Amino acid sequence: MDYPPISFSVSRFKQERLTEQILNHTIDFPWLATQFIIFIFITRLSQKIKHVNLFHFVTFRQAVLPSSGQIVHNIQQRYWNSMEFRILSTDGNARRGIIKTQRGDINTPAFMPVGTLGTVKAMSPDELKEIGAEIILGNTYHLYLRPGTDVITELGGLHKFMNWERPILTDSGGFQVFSLAAIRDIKKTGVHFRSHIDGSPHFIGPIEAMKIQGILGSDIAMVFDECIPYPSSFEYAAKSIELTTSWARICKDHQNEKQALFGIVQGGMYKDLRRKSTEDLINIGFDGYAVGGVSVGEPKEEMHEIIYFNAPLLPPDKPRYLMGIGDFSDMLGAVDAGFDMFDCVMPTRNARNGTLFTSLGRVSIKREEFKYDDNPLDPECACYTCRNYSRGYLRHLFLSREILSMRLNTLHNLFFYLNFFKNMRESIIEKTFMDFRKKWETIIT
Amino acid sequence: MDYPPISFSVSRFKQERLTEQILNHTIDFPWLATQFIIFIFITRLSQKIKHVNLFHFVTFRQAVLPSSGQIVHNIQQRYWNSMEFRILSTDGNARRGIIKTQRGDINTPAFMPVGTLGTVKAMSPDELKEIGAEIILGNTYHLYLRPGTDVITELGGLHKFMNWERPILTDSGGFQVFSLAAIRDIKKTGVHFRSHIDGSPHFIGPIEAMKIQGILGSDIAMVFDECIPYPSSFEYAAKSIELTTSWARICKDHQNEKQALFGIVQGGMYKDLRRKSTEDLINIGFDGYAVGGVSVGEPKEEMHEIIYFNAPLLPPDKPRYLMGIGDFSDMLGAVDAGFDMFDCVMPTRNARNGTLFTSLGRVSIKREEFKYDDNPLDPECACYTCRNYSRGYLRHLFLSREILSMRLNTLHNLFFYLNFFKNMRESIIEKTFMDFRKKWETIIT
Repeated sequence: MDYPPISFSVSRFKQERLTEQILNHTIDFPWLATQFIIFIFITRLSQKIKHVNLFHFVTFRQAVLPSSGQIVHNIQQRYWNSMEFRILSTDGNARRGIIKTQRGDINTPAFMPVGTLGTVKAMSPDELKEIGAEIILGNTYHLYLRPGTDVITELGGLHKFMNWERPILTDSGGFQVFSLAAIRDIKKTGVHFRSHIDGSPHFIGPIEAMKIQGILGSDIAMVFDECIPYPSSFEYAAKSIELTTSWARICKDHQNEKQALFGIVQGGMYKDLRRKSTEDLINIGFDGYAVGGVSVGEPKEEMHEIIYFNAPLLPPDKPRYLMGIGDFSDMLGAVDAGFDMFDCVMPTRNARNGTLFTSLGRVSIKREEFKYDDNPLDPECACYTCRNYSRGYLRHLFLSREILSMRLNTLHNLFFYLNFFKNMRESIIEKTFMDFRKKWETIIT
Repeated sequence: MDYPPISFSVSRFKQERLTEQILNHTIDFPWLATQFIIFIFITRLSQKIKHVNLFHFVTFRQAVLPSSGQIVHNIQQRYWNSMEFRILSTDGNARRGIIKTQRGDINTPAFMPVGTLGTVKAMSPDELKEIGAEIILGNTYHLYLRPGTDVITELGGLHKFMNWERPILTDSGGFQVFSLAAIRDIKKTGVHFRSHIDGSPHFIGPIEAMKIQGILGSDIAMVFDECIPYPSSFEYAAKSIELTTSWARICKDHQNEKQALFGIVQGGMYKDLRRKSTEDLINIGFDGYAVGGVSVGEPKEEMHEIIYFNAPLLPPDKPRYLMGIGDFSDMLGAVDAGFDMFDCVMPTRNARNGTLFTSLGRVSIKREEFKYDDNPLDPECACYTCRNYSRGYLRHLFLSREILSMRLNTLHNLFFYLNFFKNMRESIIEKTFMDFRKKWETIIT
C-alpha cells in the first residue's frame, strides 16, 4: 500500500494514536479542528485547567469520542458528500492523488478493471481484491438489459449482487446505446433504441440513466452523453455537445444521494468545441470530469493533441477521467497531461485471446518457442500465475482452450496493469515520472 | 478432517509428541517398534541404565532422530512401497479406509475430480485443495496427444506442470483409445489408432501406456485395457478379457518405481467372465483393483448386479475402484457393495451446463423461478459459492455465459461431491451408512 504522506502536520504532536486514526481515515482534519475548538471552549468555560496542553486534549477526545462514533460517522459522511479528492503530490502535470469514498479509497492515477455484466470476466471478487483493484467499472447499458434493473433492485444493488464491497463506477450507457444498439430516434429527452440482444425496444435518456445508476448503487455515476463517431462534421459535433450539455444538466438535477457524478466532455476533434463543452460542464459543476469521444478511430497524434489540450481546461481540484483508454503509451501520455483515472477492456480481453503484458514486452502465449519453456511468463512479476506456472503450461492451457487459461492470463494481465499504476504513483511522489514514462514507452509499444 | 482413530494404543503412553507424529504420518508403527527394539538393545548393551522407562526412550529418540530424518524417510518409502491401504472401519460391506501415498493421504471412500488435460476444468489447484480434494485424475490418452509426453518430460512431470502436489491417478488411455480415437488395428502388443484431434497415427499398448504414465509421474497408474461396448457377445467379451489380462501382465512387468499399479476387471455383463478376469488379475497381483466396463449403456439393474457380483471377488485388503461412476445412487450402491474409489466428470461437466447438486436435489440454475431469488443455491452448503452469491446472480451469470458462472458452479458441485463423501465416511465409522444411503437416495435421483 502506498499511502498519502499527509501525517507530518500531526506527527509534530507526536500523538501516534491520532496519526493512526487519520491514516485510517476514521477521523478527518476539519472534524479534528472542530473538536479542538469545542475543547478549548469547554476548558475556557470551566477555567479549572490553567495550562491547556495536548495531553488534556487527547484525554478529552478519549473520554468523549468513543460514545459518539455514530455522530463522527454521520458528520464525515455529510462532509465528504459521498466523495472527496485530494492531490498528495505532483510531478510536472502528473498528479498523485486519492479519492475517498464511503466504500474505500482509490489511489490515483487509477486503473479500473471493467466488469461489464456484474463480473470482471474470468475473475472472482476475492482475486480482484488480492491483486489490488480498488475500484471496478460496471456497464449501465448492459446491466439494464441483463439481468435488468428489476432483478438488481430485488437482489440488493450491484455491490451485493456481485459480492464486491469496494467502489464501483458506472458509465451512463450512452456510449453503448450509440455504438451497440440500433438507434431509432434521438430526442431532447433521450434515445429510442433496440436491444442488441433481442431487438426489444427501449428508451434511455438522462433521467433514465440516473435512475438506473441509482438502482445499481454505484459510487460514481456518469452523465448520459452522446459519443459521436470519427470523423464527424463540425456542425454535427457542435449540435451534439449542446445535446450532451443539456443532458448533463438534467443528470445533475437528478443526482442520486451518496453517489458522485462526473460530467463528460465531448466535442470530437474540434478544440473550440472541447473548450466550450468543458466550460459548460464546469458551469453546471460536477464531482469529477471525464473526457470521452477519444480513441474512436482517429490517428494517435490527433488523440494525443486532444488529450493534452483538454486536460488543463479541467478543474485541477477534481478527478480527471480519460474514458476507454488502456494502451500503455496513451495512458502514460494522459497521466503526463494530468489525468487521474482510466478504464479499458484491454487487459482482460487480450488475456482471453492469449496476449499478455510483461516487463519484457507484449507476448503471445501460443508461440511455438514457449512449448518446452519452464520459465514463468514474466520473471519480474509476483502474480499467482507467474509464481506457480510455466510458459509451457500456459501455452498448453491456451491451445487446449481450457477455462484456467483465461483465468491465469486475466489474473496476470490485471496484476500487471495494477502494479504498473502502483509503480507510476510512486514515481510521481519521487518526482521520477518522466523516467518511468520513458522506460515503459520503449518496453510496451 | 476425519482422521483414523489409531492413536489410542499410543495415547496410553501419554506421549503427546509421539501421538502427533503418528497422526501426521511422519512416523509409522513398524518403524517405531524397530526404534524401540534398537533402543532396548543399546540400553541392555551399555548396562548403565537399570530401569528403562518411556522417558529414556523419548530422550533417545529426540537425540538420535533429528539427524536421521532422511533415513526415516527412506525406510518409510521402502516400507510403504509407494502406497499403503488400511481399512479403519466397516459398516456391512462398506469400508472406511485410508490410502497412504508419498504425496499424501486419500481417505476412502474417495471421489476423484477429473483433470483431463492437466487441469480440473474451471478450477485452480488452490481451490481444489480448499474444498478437500485429496486426489485427482489425469487422462493418459489426452495428455499424450496434448501437450505430449515430450513437453511434460521437459516441464518436470504432471504434478509440477499443473502445480498440484497431492496424489494423481492416471487412467491408462485404454478407454479413450477405444471410445474416442479411430481404431485401425488391434494387436497383441497394442492398438494402432488415429488421434481424435488431427487424425495423426499413433500406437499405444501396455508397454507404451506404462511408459507414458511413468513420464506423467502419477501416484497410481492403471493397466492398459480394452473396454468393450454394450452389448457385446460372450465370444467377443471372452476374447477381450484374454487380451486385457495379457496386457495387464505386461503392465505389471513394466511397473514404474514409486508408482502403484491397479488392475482393471473387464468381462462385460457376463458374470463368468468377470470372475475369470478377476481371478487372473489377482494371480498377477496388483496394488489395487478396478472394475471397468460398467455404465457403458446397459440397464441400471444389470449394472448394479455386476457391481454387487464383482465387489466381493476382489481382495479385501486392496483398494477397489469403480471406474467412471458418478451418479449418487450408483455410488451409494457401490460403496455398499464394498468399493472405495470413484471418478466421474458429472460434477464438473454438469456445472458448466448449469446443473447443480444440492441438499434439496438436482437444480437447473437457469430456471425462471430463480430470477429474483436472493437465497444461496443450497442453504445447507458451506462452499464459497453458497456463502457469497444468490441464485439470482448465478442464474444471471449462466444466462450471460460468463466464465465466473462455470467457476462458481464447478466449485459448488465439486464441494458438494467431496462433502457428500466426507459425510459418507463418517456414517461408515458411526455404522449409520444405511441411513445415510436411504436419506440421499430419496433426495438426489
